Amino acid sequence: MMNIPMTVSSLLERAEKFFPNKEVVSRTLSGVERFSYRKIGERTRRLSSALEKLGVQRGDRVGTFAWNHHRHLETYFGIPGMGAVLHTINIRLAPEHVSYIVNHAEDVVLLVDEDLLPLVERVKDQLDTVKAFIIMTDKKELPETRLHPVFSYEDLLEEGDPNYSFVKDIDENDPAGMCYTSATTGNPKGVVYSHRSLVLHSFALGLADTAGLSEYDICMPVVPMFHANAWGLPFAATWFGTTQVLPGPQFTPQLLAELIEQENITLTAGVPTIWLGLLNELEKGDYDTSSLRAILCGGSAAPRGMIKAFETKYGIPFLHAYGMTETTPLATVSRLKSHQTGLDEEKMLDIRSMQGLLVPGLDMKVIGPDGEVKWDGQEMGELCLRGPWIADEYYKDERSRDAFKDGWLHTGDVVTIDPEGVVKIVDRTKDLIKSGGEWISSVDLENAIMAHEAVFEASVVAVPHDEWQERPVACVVLKEAYKGKVEKQEILDFISPQFAKWWLPDEVIFMEEIPKTSVGKFLKRALRDMVTKEMSGAVE
Amino acid sequence: MMNIPMTVSSLLERAEKFFPNKEVVSRTLSGVERFSYRKIGERTRRLSSALEKLGVQRGDRVGTFAWNHHRHLETYFGIPGMGAVLHTINIRLAPEHVSYIVNHAEDVVLLVDEDLLPLVERVKDQLDTVKAFIIMTDKKELPETRLHPVFSYEDLLEEGDPNYSFVKDIDENDPAGMCYTSATTGNPKGVVYSHRSLVLHSFALGLADTAGLSEYDICMPVVPMFHANAWGLPFAATWFGTTQVLPGPQFTPQLLAELIEQENITLTAGVPTIWLGLLNELEKGDYDTSSLRAILCGGSAAPRGMIKAFETKYGIPFLHAYGMTETTPLATVSRLKSHQTGLDEEKMLDIRSMQGLLVPGLDMKVIGPDGEVKWDGQEMGELCLRGPWIADEYYKDERSRDAFKDGWLHTGDVVTIDPEGVVKIVDRTKDLIKSGGEWISSVDLENAIMAHEAVFEASVVAVPHDEWQERPVACVVLKEAYKGKVEKQEILDFISPQFAKWWLPDEVIFMEEIPKTSVGKFLKRALRDMVTKEMSGAVE
Repeated sequence: MMNIPMTVSSLLERAEKFFPNKEVVSRTLSGVERFSYRKIGERTRRLSSALEKLGVQRGDRVGTFAWNHHRHLETYFGIPGMGAVLHTINIRLAPEHVSYIVNHAEDVVLLVDEDLLPLVERVKDQLDTVKAFIIMTDKKELPETRLHPVFSYEDLLEEGDPNYSFVKDIDENDPAGMCYTSATTGNPKGVVYSHRSLVLHSFALGLADTAGLSEYDICMPVVPMFHANAWGLPFAATWFGTTQVLPGPQFTPQLLAELIEQENITLTAGVPTIWLGLLNELEKGDYDTSSLRAILCGGSAAPRGMIKAFETKYGIPFLHAYGMTETTPLATVSRLKSHQTGLDEEKMLDIRSMQGLLVPGLDMKVIGPDGEVKWDGQEMGELCLRGPWIADEYYKDERSRDAFKDGWLHTGDVVTIDPEGVVKIVDRTKDLIKSGGEWISSVDLENAIMAHEAVFEASVVAVPHDEWQERPVACVVLKEAYKGKVEKQEILDFISPQFAKWWLPDEVIFMEEIPKTSVGKFLKRALRDMVTKEMSGAVE
Repeated sequence: MMNIPMTVSSLLERAEKFFPNKEVVSRTLSGVERFSYRKIGERTRRLSSALEKLGVQRGDRVGTFAWNHHRHLETYFGIPGMGAVLHTINIRLAPEHVSYIVNHAEDVVLLVDEDLLPLVERVKDQLDTVKAFIIMTDKKELPETRLHPVFSYEDLLEEGDPNYSFVKDIDENDPAGMCYTSATTGNPKGVVYSHRSLVLHSFALGLADTAGLSEYDICMPVVPMFHANAWGLPFAATWFGTTQVLPGPQFTPQLLAELIEQENITLTAGVPTIWLGLLNELEKGDYDTSSLRAILCGGSAAPRGMIKAFETKYGIPFLHAYGMTETTPLATVSRLKSHQTGLDEEKMLDIRSMQGLLVPGLDMKVIGPDGEVKWDGQEMGELCLRGPWIADEYYKDERSRDAFKDGWLHTGDVVTIDPEGVVKIVDRTKDLIKSGGEWISSVDLENAIMAHEAVFEASVVAVPHDEWQERPVACVVLKEAYKGKVEKQEILDFISPQFAKWWLPDEVIFMEEIPKTSVGKFLKRALRDMVTKEMSGAVE
């Protein structure tokens, strides 16, 4: 068989060749614009040649600091297309983490959205390796900025070569992209994606039994393009000639609902927090969401109640998935097996609320205290993954040792496996509540509480306890209409039928907001500290 | 990213792990049997260990001479699973070609179906490398045979290790399988499939935009497992946990229709000749074929009239595809693009009757007399393919030079490309009719003739002509009911509105049967010789 490397640029070349008139719909600060794949291809080639002219070398890291829009999509192909490495930077990181990862990755160029300039300016003096800043703006004139030297993205493209040939003589194992993931403590950790892994992952997204991404789809990744490559959707969607809708800066639930209606979105993707917001919006407004064939949801566990609300109230099927930056990210997708389609509605919802089945191409095992766990839906253990789109290290980072052992990624996620092989996340290893020698799943408690009609969000954390070592405490945000009208006991009574008595939280704390990470996950460590302080204060 | 090789055995391991109770339905000489993937997995592991005990070494070629059934499926995984190379032998080859390829591949073991023993016995004295024959039979006692030494497949399995671990320390570029393809002249040519190519090809079969093979499918490959791995379906179907129905020896159109009805087949696959037979059968009998979501058809061009008959009369969607032994084989699939779904019925049928769009992962170009052809649906050229599941040589064969040039496979197929990029096969380079310096497509003429209600099959060949160099002659087989009732002029009048006058065949010869190759393709070379002889005789 031919020794043909799988490359990221070949994905775009297919769109240019076979789907030149399909569109990328991009929302920027100027509004919504439409670009054909022919145009995206031409602009991407101009970008590649412009980066070469700027002196970017093969293997150099080029950072992006941007929302989801067409220019960011062009960097997805234009940077690896000239042999450099696309480093997407999480715009929501703390300044010291931004400067850490730019320096750690040794980015030579940064491409920055106009409205995000202040975030880069505040760290500019700490950036040791950046030789040029490219500002992505619709305006003719460059904005005032303290960054130096700066170039206009559109000016560079104008001088670029529209017929640039993407580099072909690369090894498919060469790096094409990288992304840093937040660590519980310390600096973010870098994951490097190879051309091979990104192409294989694109195959995985197109399988009928996973997301089934297709040319027929109109795909809106709400998950940020600075977060695990927007789950690889921009790569796969381009390859398949799928219409892409990129929702741009500072979107709101209302904007997303409007885009779904106006652009006839068939598939959208994001974290549960986004969908909680959308659900709220759908309850207020009158939107036509009938084009949606699926909401792909991952990043953290989606509450069963939310899935049910989308499906029964709005007829929008949920596709629950699981992955992480280290897994490119698609690892499991929750679809019913064919023999499960006849089960009763609640049972089917139970299955689909879990994280799902391992996607073809990967391998897994689950390690509990006594070795591999039984597939009984009960025994808990840490999920370990292996496969050609699973990272084998953190980029130049000693912490690799903790996560990558014996050829497996130890995910830090505690799961059970049901007899059908369906993964259910029970907790993060570090968020499990260890009470009297037994394990309590904070996630199970959260999901149960969030099924209460008055509850907007809930997070359960462990607080230290003299007798039991740790005990669960629930933090609850009520919906506006219910504020002040629900008490601790009502919540406990609501969930008590589902749990052993010793699982029930010792306390329910009502709050205005639950602190979240930059990607919308509950910030459990902060919450735990907060609650522990509050509780000990209460006791004192 | 992890350096994890893609291996054939990992496909089976997924079925064992996640779909142990899904079934392989196998028709053998004893009738229809059902095997769970758990059982298939266990039997395959026994086979691998049995082959090791027999002395088969890593890299050795092991031949199969068999129909489509569960044991043949076990060899698909059991042979590469212990590091050897699965060599599927076309049972319809001439004896001298069978002995040639067994010797050329240096097969060390042959696995032979009981009813095919005579075909191997007749060449046994010419086989230089085979050290053992394994007879695949349901019976307890081995049949009488002149082969030696012989082993019983089931006895070997009984002594095999059900917990055998498939070899893991292989390079994904190592050979996993091979298949010989008939040459126009001379001996068959061998194509070697790597583990990598077979896994990537399996991804390609599962994409929503190609065959969309899924766990939900019940897949019946009618295309022989000795022909381009039954188009890779057994590999992909096993990976996805798809129910497989293997139709066994000497099947008839009636048997296929019955299996479709009884087993609720959703996807079946084979060459046009098979579907002509099935269409005929459906017209006679009363079958429920409503479970079928698609008939995957390739190997040679399916007549538009046949596609239309299946779709309009029986509501069975046709999925026209193209590939060859050298392309593993999936290269194009004919699905409408999303923007074409609103076209009128006949226009959509026109598109879907073509060979279709290149599948993701491959690259193509079409070379005419003056370089790459225009995508205008008019200019003809030879289709050239490139990609990780395209062969780069014939196994130890000097003829590689003719087909593999400058990194491309030159397919020998003459095609046009429409403005959407859809490939349409016009002819084989060697079957094109060169008349007065212009090209006439024999395939276009055949399709037009086959649309006539009286016609069962038609083949158009070139005969030498003094003035025009070559001229087309049509060979036509009429349906039973029309025999003797249709004349040359009626056929010519029927097709003349579609073609320039100089395209019309000089002669229409009615015959009882059109000679076919072992895989059901028209044997044009033989037909051409026959017709040329007959015509020159007629003139004398």
